[in-house]
Amino acid sequence: MAVEPFDAVDIIRTKRDAGVLSTEQIDWLIDAYTRGYVADSQMSAFTMAVYLNGMERREIRDLTLAMIASGERLNFDTLSKRTTDKHSTGGVGDKITLPLAPLVASFGVAVPQLSGRGLGHTGGTLDKLESIPGWRADLTNDEFFAQLEDVGAVVCAAGTGLAPADKKLYALRDVTATVECIPLIASSIMSKKIAEGTASLVLDVKFGGGAFLKDLGYARELARTMTELGDDAGVKTTAFLTNMNVPLGLAIGNANEVRESVEVLAGGGPADVVELTLVLAREMLDQAGVIDADVEGALKNGKAMDTWRRMISAQGGDPDAALPTAKETHVVTAPRSGVLTRQDALPFGVAAWRLGAGRARPQDPVQHAAGIDLHAKPGDEVTEGQPLFTLSADEPERFERALEALEGSWAVGPRDELVDYGPLIATRID
Amino acid sequence: MAVEPFDAVDIIRTKRDAGVLSTEQIDWLIDAYTRGYVADSQMSAFTMAVYLNGMERREIRDLTLAMIASGERLNFDTLSKRTTDKHSTGGVGDKITLPLAPLVASFGVAVPQLSGRGLGHTGGTLDKLESIPGWRADLTNDEFFAQLEDVGAVVCAAGTGLAPADKKLYALRDVTATVECIPLIASSIMSKKIAEGTASLVLDVKFGGGAFLKDLGYARELARTMTELGDDAGVKTTAFLTNMNVPLGLAIGNANEVRESVEVLAGGGPADVVELTLVLAREMLDQAGVIDADVEGALKNGKAMDTWRRMISAQGGDPDAALPTAKETHVVTAPRSGVLTRQDALPFGVAAWRLGAGRARPQDPVQHAAGIDLHAKPGDEVTEGQPLFTLSADEPERFERALEALEGSWAVGPRDELVDYGPLIATRID
Repeated sequence: MAVEPFDAVDIIRTKRDAGVLSTEQIDWLIDAYTRGYVADSQMSAFTMAVYLNGMERREIRDLTLAMIASGERLNFDTLSKRTTDKHSTGGVGDKITLPLAPLVASFGVAVPQLSGRGLGHTGGTLDKLESIPGWRADLTNDEFFAQLEDVGAVVCAAGTGLAPADKKLYALRDVTATVECIPLIASSIMSKKIAEGTASLVLDVKFGGGAFLKDLGYARELARTMTELGDDAGVKTTAFLTNMNVPLGLAIGNANEVRESVEVLAGGGPADVVELTLVLAREMLDQAGVIDADVEGALKNGKAMDTWRRMISAQGGDPDAALPTAKETHVVTAPRSGVLTRQDALPFGVAAWRLGAGRARPQDPVQHAAGIDLHAKPGDEVTEGQPLFTLSADEPERFERALEALEGSWAVGPRDELVDYGPLIATRID
Repeated sequence: MAVEPFDAVDIIRTKRDAGVLSTEQIDWLIDAYTRGYVADSQMSAFTMAVYLNGMERREIRDLTLAMIASGERLNFDTLSKRTTDKHSTGGVGDKITLPLAPLVASFGVAVPQLSGRGLGHTGGTLDKLESIPGWRADLTNDEFFAQLEDVGAVVCAAGTGLAPADKKLYALRDVTATVECIPLIASSIMSKKIAEGTASLVLDVKFGGGAFLKDLGYARELARTMTELGDDAGVKTTAFLTNMNVPLGLAIGNANEVRESVEVLAGGGPADVVELTLVLAREMLDQAGVIDADVEGALKNGKAMDTWRRMISAQGGDPDAALPTAKETHVVTAPRSGVLTRQDALPFGVAAWRLGAGRARPQDPVQHAAGIDLHAKPGDEVTEGQPLFTLSADEPERFERALEALEGSWAVGPRDELVDYGPLIATRID
């Protein structure tokens, strides 16, 4: 009989009774779960107890470190460049990584962005990039290091070796209603980012209707928890609390978000996407020791675009290839003249998801050309009959449920009915 | 794609957020869990949410009915006798079913006692009876009905057809620290008892140190919940709150508890075992319409013993066979003369379990001769060197850990240090 130093039932009971777990208990729990000794059913009872009774700061740090210890930890000491990375908690139309990674890398800094696929109404960066013909998300460790040294920017799939405990736990939380929980979100994100080996990290923590965390106070607590976890682990970490009440930019989907990102890299693009890209780029470069970089210039003069093209090509993609377009479109027009007074992020995210841009189950494919293109933003004047947004899908039967999701989510009226969604960037935390 | 009317994640989320579930949601959840569509990991997150956020009375009733509906429900309408049954929430030295079932049956009432095996420090009735050579717990439905008609008393294993959802759920709760929860305990016990088809039921709800529920108030709430569930389902239900601070009787184990039960059936036995047997027998007979039965007489004049012998024989047991004895014994004697001032139920239960009388895992066997025989009860005068209790085990290496469990659980001293454990029966609830 193997001698186990702890009993899962005791640990679950302690958290159930709002007790505090020791470092040794947390280490054992995560290790035993990773090797299958602790069952999914036990871990899900534990996560529900954590959801309802919380964890102390020290327990969250221990949980994060235990998840890092469950796998390998990358090390960039041999790289000639400094490393910095960014993580977003996810939002509707959030394609910021696409222009941001090459923009930062164009200043000689390495951005080792290990990314994921989308589940639910927020998209995944890999799904977006996979709409580029030939582009592949899976790199070997050698390819990953070589591209970092050469191009500087890499966006690829995280290998199975990084924080495997987190992978198991995340899949479990997804089906047991224990996703929206600060100790579990913070340890999940930070275990992956710390294991990834970046020297510094900028967090884009979304709040508002289209974010996982609707509440600004709750998002702030998550941001504080994560910056402390990063600092404890020697990763310099800053967070921005940013607004996800309105879709970010004008494109929600996959191929159309790539198109919009290329516009930004060409010096154009929607103002909100450009603003957030610039703020995050300045912070990342600052952390990497590049002070007062002319990031706006790098978007205008083709420097960032050049790195983008090299980044896409290095992973087999053709930066000049035509992106896929949908078989069917459905245009929604303004029912009257006036101001676009409302455009709620969550329903637009859900609608794009229902059109095929997202997946309901992890094993489902996404339809790269499916999504929504917005033709106006809140506050814009519109005239009767003018297109407000276009739905795209490969199957026309998807429009009905997408339009259902959008009911009541937008409106045209007098300017005094314009919804105040608040500023794009609420605050910076370090 | 099968069309499921509900989503398990939505249901878990509702209970997580302390919401109230509809009858339809509960029906679907239990049905979907029984057929394997809802996973163990989802159900354990749900039960933890129920543990921490509770359930309304209506939800508990719906849960109970849904678990009954997950399997078959026995019907005794064709039986010539009235039926009544008893359930105990479990305690240390609780062998009451053994004298009680034949005593009640000796008055022409049927006692269809579907029973379980022990897990942890409280023993199981089937484990005790299996120490009788030849006795078997598994009966077919036909054998069960025939014995009820003929002998009146049957103690046997519940078939897999009764409340299968409860069986799955109970096994899950056992490994996820969600056992001690009123909505889940009440629905588990009552779904089995109602499915079993008895017309009336007497509950022995234990409280105190050796019981699952230490707290009297909590035990009272459980008793009220269960009596209401019984009455709602047309099963006349009464509950007694009884004291489990001190072991019941003088024997803790399996074979030795059978021996003590036979003493009671022969008109002797410890006063507390006799008292509780008589109180529960009067209540069961009263519910079955047998008023003012001379239950004391039936123990004295051999009437109950006769039914016991027929009950054991009908299930292949030899009532005259010698019961197993342990290979090794260890006697603990009084370190001084005085009064036995302390004898705590839980440590004695744990010690008997460690001696081999109980099991740590459902698949483990029990050692029928292992256990503890008490030679004194709190308040008894003892003299230095007099045996206080005897440990029995088949393997002498078990004594050390059993004695560890007993440290501080008993004491000999002056009478004014006698612990007040309270009366045996606290109250009756109907």
